[in-house]
Amino acid sequence: MAGLLAAVAAVAAAGILAAPASLAAQSPVEAVRAYREAHGAEILAEYRELLALPNVASDSAGVWRNAEYLRDRLDGLGFAAELLTLPGTPPVVFGQLRVPGATRTLALYVHYDGQPVDTAGWTHGPWEPTLYTRSMEAGGEPRPFPEPGEAVDPEWRIYARSAGDDKAPFAALFPVLDAFRDEGIAPTSNLLVFLEGEEEAGSPRLGEYLARHRGRLDEADIWLFLDGPVHPTGRPLITFGVRGVTALSVTVYGPTRPLHSGHYGNWAPVPGMMLSRLLASMKDETGRVLVDGFYDTVEPLGAEERAALDALPDTDPELMRELGLARTEGAPESLAERLLLPSLTVKGLASGNVGPLTRNVIPAEATAELGIRLVEGTDPDHLEDLVEAHIRAQGYHIVRDDPDLESRLAHPRIAKVERQGGYPAARTDMSLPVVRSVVAAARQGAGDELVLVPTLGGSLPLYLFTDGLGKPAVIVPIANADDNQHAPDENIRVGNLWYGMELFAALLAME
Amino acid sequence: MAGLLAAVAAVAAAGILAAPASLAAQSPVEAVRAYREAHGAEILAEYRELLALPNVASDSAGVWRNAEYLRDRLDGLGFAAELLTLPGTPPVVFGQLRVPGATRTLALYVHYDGQPVDTAGWTHGPWEPTLYTRSMEAGGEPRPFPEPGEAVDPEWRIYARSAGDDKAPFAALFPVLDAFRDEGIAPTSNLLVFLEGEEEAGSPRLGEYLARHRGRLDEADIWLFLDGPVHPTGRPLITFGVRGVTALSVTVYGPTRPLHSGHYGNWAPVPGMMLSRLLASMKDETGRVLVDGFYDTVEPLGAEERAALDALPDTDPELMRELGLARTEGAPESLAERLLLPSLTVKGLASGNVGPLTRNVIPAEATAELGIRLVEGTDPDHLEDLVEAHIRAQGYHIVRDDPDLESRLAHPRIAKVERQGGYPAARTDMSLPVVRSVVAAARQGAGDELVLVPTLGGSLPLYLFTDGLGKPAVIVPIANADDNQHAPDENIRVGNLWYGMELFAALLAME
Repeated sequence: MAGLLAAVAAVAAAGILAAPASLAAQSPVEAVRAYREAHGAEILAEYRELLALPNVASDSAGVWRNAEYLRDRLDGLGFAAELLTLPGTPPVVFGQLRVPGATRTLALYVHYDGQPVDTAGWTHGPWEPTLYTRSMEAGGEPRPFPEPGEAVDPEWRIYARSAGDDKAPFAALFPVLDAFRDEGIAPTSNLLVFLEGEEEAGSPRLGEYLARHRGRLDEADIWLFLDGPVHPTGRPLITFGVRGVTALSVTVYGPTRPLHSGHYGNWAPVPGMMLSRLLASMKDETGRVLVDGFYDTVEPLGAEERAALDALPDTDPELMRELGLARTEGAPESLAERLLLPSLTVKGLASGNVGPLTRNVIPAEATAELGIRLVEGTDPDHLEDLVEAHIRAQGYHIVRDDPDLESRLAHPRIAKVERQGGYPAARTDMSLPVVRSVVAAARQGAGDELVLVPTLGGSLPLYLFTDGLGKPAVIVPIANADDNQHAPDENIRVGNLWYGMELFAALLAME
Repeated sequence: MAGLLAAVAAVAAAGILAAPASLAAQSPVEAVRAYREAHGAEILAEYRELLALPNVASDSAGVWRNAEYLRDRLDGLGFAAELLTLPGTPPVVFGQLRVPGATRTLALYVHYDGQPVDTAGWTHGPWEPTLYTRSMEAGGEPRPFPEPGEAVDPEWRIYARSAGDDKAPFAALFPVLDAFRDEGIAPTSNLLVFLEGEEEAGSPRLGEYLARHRGRLDEADIWLFLDGPVHPTGRPLITFGVRGVTALSVTVYGPTRPLHSGHYGNWAPVPGMMLSRLLASMKDETGRVLVDGFYDTVEPLGAEERAALDALPDTDPELMRELGLARTEGAPESLAERLLLPSLTVKGLASGNVGPLTRNVIPAEATAELGIRLVEGTDPDHLEDLVEAHIRAQGYHIVRDDPDLESRLAHPRIAKVERQGGYPAARTDMSLPVVRSVVAAARQGAGDELVLVPTLGGSLPLYLFTDGLGKPAVIVPIANADDNQHAPDENIRVGNLWYGMELFAALLAME
């Protein structure tokens, strides 16, 4: 509680807090830039220390060391910091910084655990942070961490697990708060930090943590998710939503045992063909899902979202070249547009054997794994209901377990449907005043290059915040897109930490 | 050459050969029955000796011992017997018996090799023939082989590899020839025997053997294939054809690598869905193949074939119950009718993973293994051409190897089609005089229960004889349908050997 709050109190007493940050002699962004130029080596040294702490969620001792480190650091910055706990799961590091006079609260989410590691693919130990002169792919070479006062090249990369995902925000946020303290700048908002320790394990207890501490979280006006990489072009990015996700496994049945394809072929139903017909009935040649009602509840885009979409860089042609695609589903709609509709994909297919193990049989069954991505307005259970209704409309009797002989004899077509749960999408309305403030502030830190993405294609349980806590939530990433997140040789480009510092400076000082 | 031919010469000299067998005081069938009643124990003892010889085609020493045994036995029966050889492959045992005055030649095909053995599943050693009081499933117990003169129960079973498939014809044929010799009965036809040693290995050199020795085989008027089991009802059986077989492997392509189903789902083409649409276009809901021209060249049935079909026992309802099928393809047509049309089945499907290994990806490709069974009039290459034309008509560019990036970018839909070779069907016209003679003779041996099957669903390279040698060919099985062929505890019901003896007696003495 010591340093920062004292400084804040002093500054507040001087009446500076009331003045917009941009009117100060030196803007917070400029102040942070100057701080970073003076202390680059120390910032990297501190980050190296944090990255050296093993942080796989299943390694209880390791994640606790990370959590305690973060709690102590927040404590040193003047936060009321503590560890929230539930039995058998990593703690949440929770911190609260009240700024006298502030009428708004920004809540910051970061996760401190990292993807599990198969050390085989790593050039260096995942928790032995190693500095490179640039990325390995670009021919970078290892070099010592800089001495205090030594110039820092933004193209340098630090290799370590979680360097990009998701410890990078700590390496940018803590120095900003140090700089604010040193320069006597106070944040313009109260701050909450909520640091999760098992995001890479699928956030199994996140909802429980949020529900249990809802009282303390309720003052947040907006959640900033400090996670993920910036745009592949390197341009800064804010994302306003994510798709939800769910899945179904569908198995159809032929004879009770694989049959000789000669003795029975043309008479015994062929499950691979039945499944193909069933799947083909679900989607047309252009990629449109034919399941009745699939698109009916999709929340339409507002003017802001439409404008953001139109302003997105067109990376589709390059992506198509890279992926060897001569066509895409729903063409000529762009990838970004297509992500605003729910999707139905075949993640897996299996029946009998293919390749050298194939046999001249009619297999007994065929299975498809169907993946559904959801968008704002669509509900996982509802879409699963619609897919089941579609399967039923194709003449199938739906079961939950493998059918017995009696059931097989009673129903000409049987589909076992296993619903695999999931969660809904989340999208924050870009026209909300607090969202507009965040975007305006981010433009100060990020410049005109800032890309506004209505929704990510991937899924995060952001709905726990938007639906669960009823708050707007936006994703504010800082890592480079080529950070090898979830993979060996994960890294952060030092320039992206510097970008993060200026972005956070602008956000903490936003009007 | 000794015994039989001398006897035949003597009988011929007495003018008996000119008289139809049925007018003799004791018919050949009756004579053979009496011989068997007197010598049952000796017949089983001889079969035990033959079954004790290991006979997997890949065991060169073993198959040669079998071949030499069979050659010597034929030699003892008066045949001109020899081993035909090709380097690196089991010999064919070839034997020729010329009957003075005979104007017709019956060629008999049997294979003396057996399915490879995994001894794990066997109750006794596969080459330790063991006699049971009845089938193991029916509660049979092992018992000693009988002493000469001891009564033989037709329900006894001999357990050993190849007991049913395909040494059983030897156990019936040799005693018939012994009986004919003892009773002074001459066959009414010249005989050729052609005994293959690698049928269970797929008959890779059969065509070469036949071509090389065509000159000696050309005198055959009809080939009798002594192989396979009788009707599942236990009724005797003659089959006039088999289906041909071929196969195609079809792979369709999405992105060059599996993609995150969130980031790209709804935009990147999904190969599992493309493949489903492609397969669904090939067959309608009733099981009719929609590939243009697929049925156009099918040879229509003659009146005899139609009558045989109508007279077949209706086992479909029982089979459907056993297999848990509430419907069949092409219903209400029977299994036997459906086998007279070419079939297209999905033997295997694969894309990504299913079950616990499934991941949230759009897989890079999807593969189907398609099996085609052919009937008389259809050609494997031609049907494969038609399927390829169908795939092309769905907008696919067909390749033979995985496409490179340039090819992927040039073609919106690419299918790799691997044609896996195969061979045509064979069907012998039931109205040919020699075929009518065979059927009439078989009725003497088998009675009115004889079932005439226009075609088997399975495939054998019978076309090598019908198309290759230009001769009619019919399949005359004697083994019980529950003989566990190709499986552990293979067996023969002794009564089926007795049936085989009477059947062969009738055939060898046919008008």
